[in-house]
Amino acid sequence: MSSRAAWTDLLRRYAELRDLSSTAALLQWDQETMMPRRGAAARAQQLVTLAGLRHERFTDPRIGDLVLQCEATPGEFDDEERAQLREFASDWRRATKLPRELVEAFAAAESAALEAWRDARAKSDWQAFAPHLERLVGLSRRKCAVLGFGDRPYDGLLDDYERGATEAALERLFTDLKARLAPMVAAIIERRDRVDASCVKQRFDERGQEAFAARIVQAMGFDLDAGRIDRSSHPFCSGIAHGDVRLTRRFVEGDLRPALFGVIHEAGHGLYEQGLPERLARTPLGEACSLGVHESQSRLWENIVARSLPFWQAFTPVAAECFPTQLRGVSPEQLWRAVNQVERSLIRVEADELTYNLHIIVRFELERALVKGTLAVADVPAEWNEAMRQLLGVVPERDADGCLQDIHWSMGGLGYFPTYTLGNLYAAQLWETAGRELSGLEAGIARGELLPLREWLRAKVHVHGRRHTAGELIERATGAPPSAEPFLRLLKSKFGAIYGVDLTHCG
Amino acid sequence: MSSRAAWTDLLRRYAELRDLSSTAALLQWDQETMMPRRGAAARAQQLVTLAGLRHERFTDPRIGDLVLQCEATPGEFDDEERAQLREFASDWRRATKLPRELVEAFAAAESAALEAWRDARAKSDWQAFAPHLERLVGLSRRKCAVLGFGDRPYDGLLDDYERGATEAALERLFTDLKARLAPMVAAIIERRDRVDASCVKQRFDERGQEAFAARIVQAMGFDLDAGRIDRSSHPFCSGIAHGDVRLTRRFVEGDLRPALFGVIHEAGHGLYEQGLPERLARTPLGEACSLGVHESQSRLWENIVARSLPFWQAFTPVAAECFPTQLRGVSPEQLWRAVNQVERSLIRVEADELTYNLHIIVRFELERALVKGTLAVADVPAEWNEAMRQLLGVVPERDADGCLQDIHWSMGGLGYFPTYTLGNLYAAQLWETAGRELSGLEAGIARGELLPLREWLRAKVHVHGRRHTAGELIERATGAPPSAEPFLRLLKSKFGAIYGVDLTHCG
Repeated sequence: MSSRAAWTDLLRRYAELRDLSSTAALLQWDQETMMPRRGAAARAQQLVTLAGLRHERFTDPRIGDLVLQCEATPGEFDDEERAQLREFASDWRRATKLPRELVEAFAAAESAALEAWRDARAKSDWQAFAPHLERLVGLSRRKCAVLGFGDRPYDGLLDDYERGATEAALERLFTDLKARLAPMVAAIIERRDRVDASCVKQRFDERGQEAFAARIVQAMGFDLDAGRIDRSSHPFCSGIAHGDVRLTRRFVEGDLRPALFGVIHEAGHGLYEQGLPERLARTPLGEACSLGVHESQSRLWENIVARSLPFWQAFTPVAAECFPTQLRGVSPEQLWRAVNQVERSLIRVEADELTYNLHIIVRFELERALVKGTLAVADVPAEWNEAMRQLLGVVPERDADGCLQDIHWSMGGLGYFPTYTLGNLYAAQLWETAGRELSGLEAGIARGELLPLREWLRAKVHVHGRRHTAGELIERATGAPPSAEPFLRLLKSKFGAIYGVDLTHCG
Repeated sequence: MSSRAAWTDLLRRYAELRDLSSTAALLQWDQETMMPRRGAAARAQQLVTLAGLRHERFTDPRIGDLVLQCEATPGEFDDEERAQLREFASDWRRATKLPRELVEAFAAAESAALEAWRDARAKSDWQAFAPHLERLVGLSRRKCAVLGFGDRPYDGLLDDYERGATEAALERLFTDLKARLAPMVAAIIERRDRVDASCVKQRFDERGQEAFAARIVQAMGFDLDAGRIDRSSHPFCSGIAHGDVRLTRRFVEGDLRPALFGVIHEAGHGLYEQGLPERLARTPLGEACSLGVHESQSRLWENIVARSLPFWQAFTPVAAECFPTQLRGVSPEQLWRAVNQVERSLIRVEADELTYNLHIIVRFELERALVKGTLAVADVPAEWNEAMRQLLGVVPERDADGCLQDIHWSMGGLGYFPTYTLGNLYAAQLWETAGRELSGLEAGIARGELLPLREWLRAKVHVHGRRHTAGELIERATGAPPSAEPFLRLLKSKFGAIYGVDLTHCG
């Protein structure tokens, strides 16, 4: 077989593997949105079967022969094909290290943990969830060991989400961020009376919230012919396949913000998935670059765009159309200030931009201790509360508002949280560059024109799929390697203005 | 390997195959209810991949070894296990005759045809659908040839839905039915002024229709913790897995009947799926006996129960609660008569019990001619219209109300239609027996008590899964082999009463 024939065979096999992943993604989406309660056991079995089968196909010895043959003749391939091969080979090498039994055990444990977490959170009962987390931590450690990360297991988990990220580098980043954010938070909290959020804390019915969010998502250019929006308890975005990207939303009646920024966040993810080019669909490059880059898209739209004054200049009239009674006479500036209220709060997904990364640091510290074995699952609630006290200055009264609030651990996503912070940093850096390259960007946003930004992100980020590493992608898009400085600059300028305080001395 | 070990391995493999079927069923359900328009191409690929993979796994030579080993030692197994083995072996022998390429071609052609049919029906454009049907007919003929039905291809198609049914036997049955139904229809149509359906031909809003249908489905004992009901253009029931059975409904504003009887029909299917015992889930017996038996469940609830006077004695007050304006002062008898209006009509799913089988005969004649090659796809509209004129006395003005009305052919379901008629016959036979065995059955229904009938069907039909053939099952349940007589008796008695005419001389 020629190398070209081997390559064609590889691509065909990859497409089949991708179909199995897409299928599993649909099963999971359905599990969260549509599945009847008593379908859980059968769904778990379906997911185990799919995971096992996909793994078996991926680790078929024939694929190894094909990969090695292609790798031996790099001259046969163009740049893009070499990038395709590099990603395929990397995924394949990782997969071959994992025994099928472990892959299936993970899939089974995740489905069980997800069910248990949902109940446990409703009842705020950590004990009910603990054995599931115990099992997932154990499986994660086994996985890291077989992947060759036995001595630094957390790096093995990070590798799944942000290739090349390390615990050590994150620790440095977080230590620095913590030190620089703390005085800013303190300075702002001292002036917390400068922001009045009462205009967004009224009763907003579900239909009106849905209509308002739909208007924004539409303005962002999310294509509802190639996607949909449903209700779920924990909002998420699932890029099931090309042409099929699904967002979910939640609903909180007494506050306009949680559901709204949740949908915009997920739509940011959704634009990335919809922006992956059709040409690369079902190929190794036809996926997002990394979770950090994915979060940069969601956080950019959620925070930098939708918590900006120009945005509220454009969308306050739309909000007032949806809620004529509640928002009568409320100005864009009032809404802008209200959605940027800084608080020592309990819930990550509702946290302001300033304190958000502190929530991430709480989770990072706990999960790496869990994986290292220096923290027992039973001790998580106490440790969580203590970390919240130290970093945020508040302590949850119920685990439902504390260590049970997030879905991630129940989905086996240890190592996922740090990507949110990386996303915040990438987002600010991309935004600064977009501002330089797109003249009148903010003036356009103030007129409700969000598509130029989407097009810029599409060209700089989406269209490349997985061709570059996160670091390369950011450097190519912005001219500089990833850095926390643009993010800190943005915070200082925005919160300095809103709270009327000079933050330039901070950080 | 011992025969017991071989058996355990076989069951494990069957469970995996079943998970893949369940997964495909979810993908198809989603395709009809939730999938965004632009997701169609990717969905088609996923379904092709799943079909091909399932086929490859099913025809793994190792399965052949295991089947033969188990078949060689029948003494090792109990009765139920032997039945499991028989069904597994039969499915396996059928699967091994089909090349993977044909299975995948079918899956691809079905997805494409389904999309095309939806558009073609909307535009009433047969030409747009014709090439897809052409392709499916060609693939069906190839399939029958490789399955060994080359000389009687239609039998090969029937074999998929109703094992053992033959074109010759159906032809005899249909000729007889036609001869006996014709004078009944003629006698009734002559007195068509005896029934006034105006009470069900008003505007009924979707919410009210949904609420009314939900009350009935609940009374039937359909478990919404193990299922759900959604909107789709063509109603169907998908038994995705144990604990996950999904119905769909449609909506017609100007007539209470189409959506209502559609939901009850699908709920009848749904009760069967929910009644398959958990013990048999993911085993070869854990499926419905045949499509004819499946239709017996849907048609029994739709027609024999829900078009009976006792049913309307119970549910007229519920209907009046849902539609207080429209149904003020309407009596159970008025509603009962209205839902039994006999008409020479165009649409099968809205046809009355008397003319329904004539609609089936139209389709049976056309599809067997298509498969035989004596009818060209291009000539279907003209032939359809002519057959309608002869059998029903009406001719559609648009193909959308004629040969494009049904989803079945677009799903590759040539050979499916006759199972509706078999279902009608089985249903009447089961109902007569239930009436003998359950004292006060109709009096209970008049009080809204539908669960005793569900329990009886569960014990007599559902609980057996695929253990018996359709003929055996009916005989075990009713004490007699399948016959058309109970069905004809039922029609004569009911329509004789409603239309005030003695039909005993007919048939």
